[in-house]
Amino acid sequence: MVGGGSSERSLQRALELGAIDRAAEGPEDALDGVDVCFVCAPVSAVVESAAAALASGGDAVVSDVGSTKCSVLEGLAERGLSVEDRSRFVGGHPLAGAETAGVDHASADLFQDARWYLTPTESTSGVHYDRLYRTVSALGARPAAIGASIHDRLMATVSHLPHVLANALVSQAAHELVEESQTLPATGPSFRDATRVAGANPPLWRDIFLANRDAIDGEIETLVASLRKVQEDLRAGDADAIERSIERSRADRRRLLESELAGGAVSEVRAAVPNRPGIVAQLALAVGEAGVNIVDMALYPAPDMRSGAIALWVQGDGSAERVIGVVEALGFRAHVA
Amino acid sequence: MVGGGSSERSLQRALELGAIDRAAEGPEDALDGVDVCFVCAPVSAVVESAAAALASGGDAVVSDVGSTKCSVLEGLAERGLSVEDRSRFVGGHPLAGAETAGVDHASADLFQDARWYLTPTESTSGVHYDRLYRTVSALGARPAAIGASIHDRLMATVSHLPHVLANALVSQAAHELVEESQTLPATGPSFRDATRVAGANPPLWRDIFLANRDAIDGEIETLVASLRKVQEDLRAGDADAIERSIERSRADRRRLLESELAGGAVSEVRAAVPNRPGIVAQLALAVGEAGVNIVDMALYPAPDMRSGAIALWVQGDGSAERVIGVVEALGFRAHVA
Repeated sequence: MVGGGSSERSLQRALELGAIDRAAEGPEDALDGVDVCFVCAPVSAVVESAAAALASGGDAVVSDVGSTKCSVLEGLAERGLSVEDRSRFVGGHPLAGAETAGVDHASADLFQDARWYLTPTESTSGVHYDRLYRTVSALGARPAAIGASIHDRLMATVSHLPHVLANALVSQAAHELVEESQTLPATGPSFRDATRVAGANPPLWRDIFLANRDAIDGEIETLVASLRKVQEDLRAGDADAIERSIERSRADRRRLLESELAGGAVSEVRAAVPNRPGIVAQLALAVGEAGVNIVDMALYPAPDMRSGAIALWVQGDGSAERVIGVVEALGFRAHVA
Repeated sequence: MVGGGSSERSLQRALELGAIDRAAEGPEDALDGVDVCFVCAPVSAVVESAAAALASGGDAVVSDVGSTKCSVLEGLAERGLSVEDRSRFVGGHPLAGAETAGVDHASADLFQDARWYLTPTESTSGVHYDRLYRTVSALGARPAAIGASIHDRLMATVSHLPHVLANALVSQAAHELVEESQTLPATGPSFRDATRVAGANPPLWRDIFLANRDAIDGEIETLVASLRKVQEDLRAGDADAIERSIERSRADRRRLLESELAGGAVSEVRAAVPNRPGIVAQLALAVGEAGVNIVDMALYPAPDMRSGAIALWVQGDGSAERVIGVVEALGFRAHVA
C-alpha cells in the first residue's frame, strides 16, 4: 500500500499506524508498480488528479470516491487522454464514512458491508474493472455496478434534494417569522425534522451541488411538478385526490424504510414521557434489555418542555408489542403509531 | 364545567373522572348558563357546531381549537348569523396535545405553558375576548393574539408545508428507485429526516390541507420561487451565490432553534458509536447524569448497520464540552458538529 498526499505529517503518521507501507515522493512515484489507484480528493479536484494518474502511464486501474460521477467522466473526456488511458478509469462511490477525518482516525473496517457503487462505461477495460471490483470486495464492501447518470440521479433524490429543501424551508420560515414578529411555534416534529440538515457545511455542499447540478436541476423540476399537482388539488378542493396521494406516500415510506433496513417490517411506537435528563436513557436501556434494536428514534418535546413523546422505530415481528410492554412497565403510555 | 358530545359513554366517564361536572342533554342544554364554550371538533365540522352554539342564544364566548383559523371565520360569515352573535366568536388554537386521545387520557395540565393562539377580528366583542383570554390563562396556557391569516400562514410554513414536502419527496424517491430497480442507498440522515412524517394520518391531513388550502398554496408558491433560484444558480455555476445561500440557511436554522427553545445557545455534538441494543441508553444515561438535557437527537446508522453516529443537540453554556467529555469517558469519539 503506497500513500501519496500533500501533507508530510499525515504520510508519516500513516506509516507509523501501518495504514500505508510506503510514502510516495510524488504522483509518479506513487503509481510505480501499483495495480489500483484511488484518488481521494474533493469533487472539484478529482478530475485533475485522476487525469494526472492516468497520464503518468503504468497499468493501474484508477478510481475515485466522490459522491457524484458524471462530472468526473465529463471532465476526464475533456482532458485529451488516449482511449487506452481512459479505459483504465472507473468511477467509484463508497457509501461509508465516519464522523471523524484524518489518518489518526483510520479504521480497517470502515467499508465493511458498505455499498460501493462503481460506474463503468462502454469504454471501460474489463480486466481493469474486474481488478477494482475484487479490490473493493477485499476491503469488505459490496460493489454494485450502476450507470453514472442513474447514480447521480439517485444521489440527487435521496441526498442532495433534501438538503436543498431543508435550506429553502428554514430560510422561508425565518423570513416570515421575522416579518410577522413571531417566534417559531412549537407545532410538531415535521419542521425540525425537515430542516435538521439545513446549512450543513457550506463549502462542501456548494461543491456537491455544483458537481451534480444537472441531476439536482432535474429532481427539482420533478418536485415542482408534484407541488403544482398539490396546488391543483387544493384549489379544486379535491378531498379524494388529496387523501389518495397521502395514502400513496404512506405506502412508499414504509416500503423504502423496509428496503433500506432489509431485516423485516418496521413499526413505529410512540411513548408519552416526562421531559427530563435521563428519560431517554431509561427508556432506551429498558428496550435494549428486551433485546429490541432501535433503528430510528425522534424526540418530540411538548410545548411546556416538561413532557413529550419519544418515537421509536423498531424492527422484527413482535418488537412493537415488546416495546409497548417495556414502556408500560416503566409507568408510561405507549402505542403503535 | 358542562360537557356535551355524541358518545354517552365518554360523557359518563368524564363525569366519573371529574373532568366535567354535568353532562348536557344536547347542544342547547350544554350552553345553559355557560360563559365560555369550546367547540372541539375536526376542522371540517367546527363551523356547523360553532354556528349552532352562537345561534342558540345566551352570552357565551364561543371558541374552537382547530389548527387553521381563516376557514372557520369564512364559514361562519356565510351562516347568516347576527352581528351580535358573530361578535361572540373568537377562534383559538392551543399548541398542545398528547399522543393519546379520549377522556380516559384527560390531563389537568395538558395546556400548562402551551402557547394558545387567539384570533380576534375587528368585529370581536372586547368583553368576550377578555373572558376567553382569562379562561385560557387560567388553564395554564399562554394566550397570544394573532391575525387569523398570519396564523394560517405560519402553520402552513412550519407544519403543513413540511408535510407536503415529505409526501412528495418519499414518492419521488420510491418511483425512481423502482424505475431503476435500485434499493434505497444508505446515504445519510437527510432523506430519512425529511420524510419521517410522510403519509401521516391521511384523513386528518386531508382535512388540514383543505382547511388551510389558501395559505398552503401561497407557501408552495414561495418555495417554488426559492427552488427556481437554486436552479438558476446551478445552471449559471455560480459557486459564490450557492455558498452564500447555504450560509444564510445555516444562520437561519440556528436562530430558529434558539428562539424555539429560548434557553440559550444550542450546540450539536456528534458521537461515533457501535450500533447495538443499549448503546443509546448508555450514552443518554451518562449525558443525563452529567446534568445535560438533550433537546433533540438523531441516530445515523452506518451502512453496515453495526456502527453509526448519534447527534445530540444540547443547550446551555459548556454543555457541548461536558457531553464530549462524557462520550470520551465511555471510550467513543465525539466532536461539535
